[in-house]
Amino acid sequence: MPLLSQACNIPPAEDKEIIHFSSKQETKARFLLAIGTSIQRGLVIYICFFKGADEDLVPKIVDTLLNVKLSENENSEFVSVLDLPGDVLIIPQATLGGKPKGRRMQYHANIEKEKGLELYSQFVALCEKELATNAKCLEAGVLVKHGTYGNRQVLKLDTNGPYTHLIEF
Amino acid sequence: MPLLSQACNIPPAEDKEIIHFSSKQETKARFLLAIGTSIQRGLVIYICFFKGADEDLVPKIVDTLLNVKLSENENSEFVSVLDLPGDVLIIPQATLGGKPKGRRMQYHANIEKEKGLELYSQFVALCEKELATNAKCLEAGVLVKHGTYGNRQVLKLDTNGPYTHLIEF
Repeated sequence: MPLLSQACNIPPAEDKEIIHFSSKQETKARFLLAIGTSIQRGLVIYICFFKGADEDLVPKIVDTLLNVKLSENENSEFVSVLDLPGDVLIIPQATLGGKPKGRRMQYHANIEKEKGLELYSQFVALCEKELATNAKCLEAGVLVKHGTYGNRQVLKLDTNGPYTHLIEF
Repeated sequence: MPLLSQACNIPPAEDKEIIHFSSKQETKARFLLAIGTSIQRGLVIYICFFKGADEDLVPKIVDTLLNVKLSENENSEFVSVLDLPGDVLIIPQATLGGKPKGRRMQYHANIEKEKGLELYSQFVALCEKELATNAKCLEAGVLVKHGTYGNRQVLKLDTNGPYTHLIEF
């Protein structure tokens, strides 16, 4: 199963915060997501695809994540990462699909690795496109950064208040 | 809704990792949990109680979290945090109970704050008891550290490979 591999830190800041975010819709349950965000700095997304996930799901996920109001701005108002505007750090995290079986974790719900890589690549590309076509993001020069699918990677987070959510699609 | 308040960093280390861990059992769905662990160092738990959660659930949650094999030891074997042995950092994280409604997050599933504080205090106390009565943990001098319920707090994580799980009880 994939782990993270590439060092991809969110930009250093004195006052940033994490949001973890993920969701589940039992009727579909094709996709599980956890997001951490650096409030006033951006959004950290932990992403895991389940068996049955397909390309149609990707635009919906991207639209939700980039537009839901999870980030706190200078006036303590919650805004979307596009409106912040902030960086987006995407972390492929297949372990999110695990379930405890006795004392061990099992990952039977996870998508096959090749299909997962395909969906992950589409997800990253669409996030990049959305930021690249958003005027505020362009002006601020914010970026999408992402981990390498299937590998372990270094991660450091620095927060003045973790703010964790879960969503499933 | 509660946010984190107390600074409670996991001990610094060159080689530690994070695990986030949470689970859901739809038939109960009284409790949602996300855990991050510092592999070879301990376990970070993000915890949120849903409406309907009660005292009976606490021992089950503690037993699962402290005994499931989520931590990697020096020989790259997965062991429980009790067997590692490692520190446990508990973070009350009510935002885990959120669901997106349009562009905003709503937290209608979360337990009332007073009851949540009561369950959180029991959870922390039971974790402390389990570590205090475990020979390996006693010898290694590992500790339970925890955030303050209902407040925002600083959190820093440093990892050589986040390893995130979700469990619901």
